[in-house]
Amino acid sequence: MSLIVQKYGGTSVGTVERIQAVADKVAKSYRSGNQLVVAVSAMSGETNRLIGLAKEIDDQPSLREMDVLVSTGEQVTIALLCMALAKVGIEARSYTGAQVRILTDSSHGKARIQAIDSHLIEADLNAGRVVVVAGFQGSDDSGNITTLGRGGSDTTAVALAAALKADECQIYTDVDGVYTTDPRVVSRARRLDKITFEEMLEMASQGSKILQIRSVEFAGKYNVPLRVMSSFEEGPGTLISLEDEDQMEKAVVSGIAFNRDEAKLTIRGIPDQPGVAYKVLGAISAANVEIDVIVQNVAKDNSATITFTVHRNDLAQAEALLRKIAEDLGAQEVDADDRIAKVSIVGVGMRSHAGVASQMFEALAQEGINIQLITTSEIKITVVIEERYLELAVRALHSGFELDTQDGNPS
Amino acid sequence: MSLIVQKYGGTSVGTVERIQAVADKVAKSYRSGNQLVVAVSAMSGETNRLIGLAKEIDDQPSLREMDVLVSTGEQVTIALLCMALAKVGIEARSYTGAQVRILTDSSHGKARIQAIDSHLIEADLNAGRVVVVAGFQGSDDSGNITTLGRGGSDTTAVALAAALKADECQIYTDVDGVYTTDPRVVSRARRLDKITFEEMLEMASQGSKILQIRSVEFAGKYNVPLRVMSSFEEGPGTLISLEDEDQMEKAVVSGIAFNRDEAKLTIRGIPDQPGVAYKVLGAISAANVEIDVIVQNVAKDNSATITFTVHRNDLAQAEALLRKIAEDLGAQEVDADDRIAKVSIVGVGMRSHAGVASQMFEALAQEGINIQLITTSEIKITVVIEERYLELAVRALHSGFELDTQDGNPS
Repeated sequence: MSLIVQKYGGTSVGTVERIQAVADKVAKSYRSGNQLVVAVSAMSGETNRLIGLAKEIDDQPSLREMDVLVSTGEQVTIALLCMALAKVGIEARSYTGAQVRILTDSSHGKARIQAIDSHLIEADLNAGRVVVVAGFQGSDDSGNITTLGRGGSDTTAVALAAALKADECQIYTDVDGVYTTDPRVVSRARRLDKITFEEMLEMASQGSKILQIRSVEFAGKYNVPLRVMSSFEEGPGTLISLEDEDQMEKAVVSGIAFNRDEAKLTIRGIPDQPGVAYKVLGAISAANVEIDVIVQNVAKDNSATITFTVHRNDLAQAEALLRKIAEDLGAQEVDADDRIAKVSIVGVGMRSHAGVASQMFEALAQEGINIQLITTSEIKITVVIEERYLELAVRALHSGFELDTQDGNPS
Repeated sequence: MSLIVQKYGGTSVGTVERIQAVADKVAKSYRSGNQLVVAVSAMSGETNRLIGLAKEIDDQPSLREMDVLVSTGEQVTIALLCMALAKVGIEARSYTGAQVRILTDSSHGKARIQAIDSHLIEADLNAGRVVVVAGFQGSDDSGNITTLGRGGSDTTAVALAAALKADECQIYTDVDGVYTTDPRVVSRARRLDKITFEEMLEMASQGSKILQIRSVEFAGKYNVPLRVMSSFEEGPGTLISLEDEDQMEKAVVSGIAFNRDEAKLTIRGIPDQPGVAYKVLGAISAANVEIDVIVQNVAKDNSATITFTVHRNDLAQAEALLRKIAEDLGAQEVDADDRIAKVSIVGVGMRSHAGVASQMFEALAQEGINIQLITTSEIKITVVIEERYLELAVRALHSGFELDTQDGNPS
């Protein structure tokens, strides 16, 4: 008998019919002999409806009261799912985050889980019941309702799996697994059977929206095997787990991630002296603009050039700040460019393979794609290129690193 | 400084605009120097929406999960009201029933309050905050969410007022007080300034839907002065309190209550022997049909006649049962009549005034209205008449007992 934690997101429970379909999936797993804990999100659209009500009253409502408000979304789902389970003959019991209890800190809207009391859940499991838990929420040590922030239901599921020492945490979503890259861009993209936590993190941080980054970190930290599966189709999904010496060594690159939400800013001709990077980037950060890639070079005349990327929505604000900073520092010029894209190759295999970077740059050069920036981490190489070459670059890398399936269909 | 508990029902908080209007009312009372605890219902329509979702899944959903589901309705309101209060500069904090904590028994859907822990509320009041509590809900000693049943927000408010020893419990509703009778039937009906708990109970049980009966019982038991007021207009409302020797003695009859939701069943020619009333009525009750008025007589031939009333919705079922019972008992005949109405005069004054009954019967006789049944309690006399005479009877009694205002307008 395995103990499995399943998580169903907002789309998977978006209507009464879908909740009934989830009940059928849960029932099937239960009847095949598993113990089951199910974490659910609010029905899709519900959280936005609630936020809309709040915004009618106040643009910046109290964060404590926002949590009281939006946490009702998952509470509705847990009750409906338990009813649907009862209807198919499965005894189930629902718990809000506060009831479990999922203890968090007091950062309303972005609370972090500190501890989970598993005794109620274990008692129900031992009595043969399925346990349904509201995702995304908990309560602090004063009993105030908290939420973990958007996507936090994944984190709830992983934290429950860790606390209960579950055999697997299954994240049901609207895709049937993690792909080598986005199948909308590369038709020969294929589903990965396995991927490591580290690789998944790098893929996720590059815009693969399947899993919330924090939940992958959490799963890695507690070594909870995580499986991404489709709510709507049968299939094994993708298992995310620790590196497996035998399996993983084969592929040098597991996937190609990309992102076109960013814009690039460059400041040139800064007198090169200690602290300029701080002066430039500190001022941007202080304005709550998140900075992604950062590259600094020194020119022949000893002046420095700093290039960094920000989210496109923040470009105007960041550019204005940067022009002011340039004036203060006596820098020569500021460039802004929002027609860029970021492309990364990700794979634990590249640790032990020299030449992966040059293979990447060669594949891009063969297509005549100019590289504007390069950054690397242990298991990822990222380049920034002109946006119009994005699809071409992704396809070139996907076939260059032998990720294409033979028949062109996802396996 | 007075401590006041206010309660706003679903219509009063039915839209964001109305919640903002409630915030203004609360703010006004707070700024005039009161400490305030506010109990609220779900936004009108919300509870029915949630029940609708459940019924799509199961006609008879788990009562535990129904409570998890519908309790989200008030939780939304408390959050929105606190936001609206913050927006008008009043610091407020929301609590669900479970957070307060309002401890109830475990009868899901119709739980009864056993205790209220007032320490969180008192700490907030002492810190100058307004406290907003979700009506209608609590939690049992295992932490399961419970609801008090429809209309239970009134009970929450009264129980909070009792626990906090509040100076007054104000029930805001869509009428501006308790009237001598329904103004839609008698244009000269007038708002009562005061009424006793007992009278209010008798009025409520006769179809005056302003207050939930349990909340009036509760208020009477703990002597919590209860005031019914309009959410939409200014005005003193009606104070419901203990009998006041000076004030109350003046009026013999305080109000005329009526009800046309019932039907009458008669079984004639039952061999008169001990236990026949039980045989007849026990079988009806056992089918969960509620019986209201019961009258039994014995005819010349020693056979018994039993007449009773049930809700019109239950008439078909009750009649079928009664025909079966009649056969078993060898009774002569069964009559069913759903064209009846019940009219009551209510007043603590009638305790000390002889002749109130005969005055009532005389007023009806003068209009040619035949009385089918009569029952009496200490402060109420009820008659059953033909439905078509209902309005005529109510008007005749209203003026017969001098309840009409001189100018014909509500005072």
